[in-house]
Amino acid sequence: MLKFGEMKRGQEKGEQMIHADDFEKIFLPGLAIDAVIFGFQDNQLKILLLEYEHTNLFALPAGFIKKEENLNDAARRSVLERTGLHNIYLEQFYIFGDVARHDPEPLRKIMQAKGHPPSNDHWLLRRFLTVGYYALIDYTKATPIPDQLADSCEWHELQNLPPLMLDHREIVSKALESLRANLDQKLIGFNLMPENFTMQDLQSLYETVLGQKLLRTSFQRKMLSLGILERFEKKYSGGAHKAPYLYRFIKKQKL
Amino acid sequence: MLKFGEMKRGQEKGEQMIHADDFEKIFLPGLAIDAVIFGFQDNQLKILLLEYEHTNLFALPAGFIKKEENLNDAARRSVLERTGLHNIYLEQFYIFGDVARHDPEPLRKIMQAKGHPPSNDHWLLRRFLTVGYYALIDYTKATPIPDQLADSCEWHELQNLPPLMLDHREIVSKALESLRANLDQKLIGFNLMPENFTMQDLQSLYETVLGQKLLRTSFQRKMLSLGILERFEKKYSGGAHKAPYLYRFIKKQKL
Repeated sequence: MLKFGEMKRGQEKGEQMIHADDFEKIFLPGLAIDAVIFGFQDNQLKILLLEYEHTNLFALPAGFIKKEENLNDAARRSVLERTGLHNIYLEQFYIFGDVARHDPEPLRKIMQAKGHPPSNDHWLLRRFLTVGYYALIDYTKATPIPDQLADSCEWHELQNLPPLMLDHREIVSKALESLRANLDQKLIGFNLMPENFTMQDLQSLYETVLGQKLLRTSFQRKMLSLGILERFEKKYSGGAHKAPYLYRFIKKQKL
Repeated sequence: MLKFGEMKRGQEKGEQMIHADDFEKIFLPGLAIDAVIFGFQDNQLKILLLEYEHTNLFALPAGFIKKEENLNDAARRSVLERTGLHNIYLEQFYIFGDVARHDPEPLRKIMQAKGHPPSNDHWLLRRFLTVGYYALIDYTKATPIPDQLADSCEWHELQNLPPLMLDHREIVSKALESLRANLDQKLIGFNLMPENFTMQDLQSLYETVLGQKLLRTSFQRKMLSLGILERFEKKYSGGAHKAPYLYRFIKKQKL
């Protein structure tokens, strides 16, 4: 969301160029958005992180709220700008508002490394509270796009994250906690699946998010009893009798 | 939280007097707190509302965040100022951030009615996002205290609320929704009970919050199986064999 200097891949498609001094004119003060964008691949839960070169700093994709913009729309826009994805499942989970989270140093370092050393009272260096959102996306459809200060935007396994700046590690933990709590209650897991999937794919997702093994027969019985899955005929293949059924969800839930 | 004019009952006990022009110096801009303070009495779920005389306006108790204050501490302080209660169960449930919720008229009317007509660009009339918290308190212990602009702070049955200003009705609905979702998952209901209670009192609470009747035997079995209740001996009374057992919770959960 911090935009200086040269255009980056993807930014020609609508992301606004913002001069370092214009934040104050465009955005609400003191309030940011941090997005924990979950994807699921190879039985691993992953999140998108930005990396700032020459600083060794990793951060969650962030955003600010325009003066005439709804908070939830600002979150959607922020995730769209990093993933290229519209209409994704997005949910607020917590607002982080401790005084202790205010530390201007990482951002000062990032701006310096980009050749834009900020003044001491720069808008971006003031105290921010941040609204945590988690997004659930179909990994196969996202095209991660760095913001203007970052040098990369990439998937990282949740089990193997680099050190994150500020309180971003805590934000990730709280997001995972909310995802776990909502997985059964709100049946949101399917937002992490591709269009078609096997029952085993779905069970792997649940096992990974919940961090525990589940019994195959009871998992399958439960999922089928919810009436949210549509089953396709098996496709012909060499070992046809062993080919698993493919399923898809009847409809997707959105914010 | 808006403080002008004469002292009110309770305010001499620590609530700060703030001149209408000092908000900008003391508080973070653009972010408020609204508290849905639940109590349970006579089998009714109730919430605290402020009433502004000469305006016919009712509102949730609100607060702002001091520049060097943690968000959750600001919420605790706001609830303390309205109830006199320390150490209560308090939980964030949503941040309301639509542009459409910005309407300076009710507050202008309230300030005018108090003899403090605000300038058009007054800090209090700008766009605010608000963090919704719900509080669960023991009804028997609270002493509702109006803020400086309000003329009363009183309990209202959730089933029978007056029209509320701004989007406060929506905030109440969302709070109730969160309370329902968390009642079983987090076992927070006991924060609404007095020190000692009967199983029937507890069942009434659950039935009222959930809006449905529960089976007495299975409710009792479930509650006892949780291992969170301590049972007292029946007290002697005229009809001793019919006297219900009294229970208390072994420990209370806090934010």
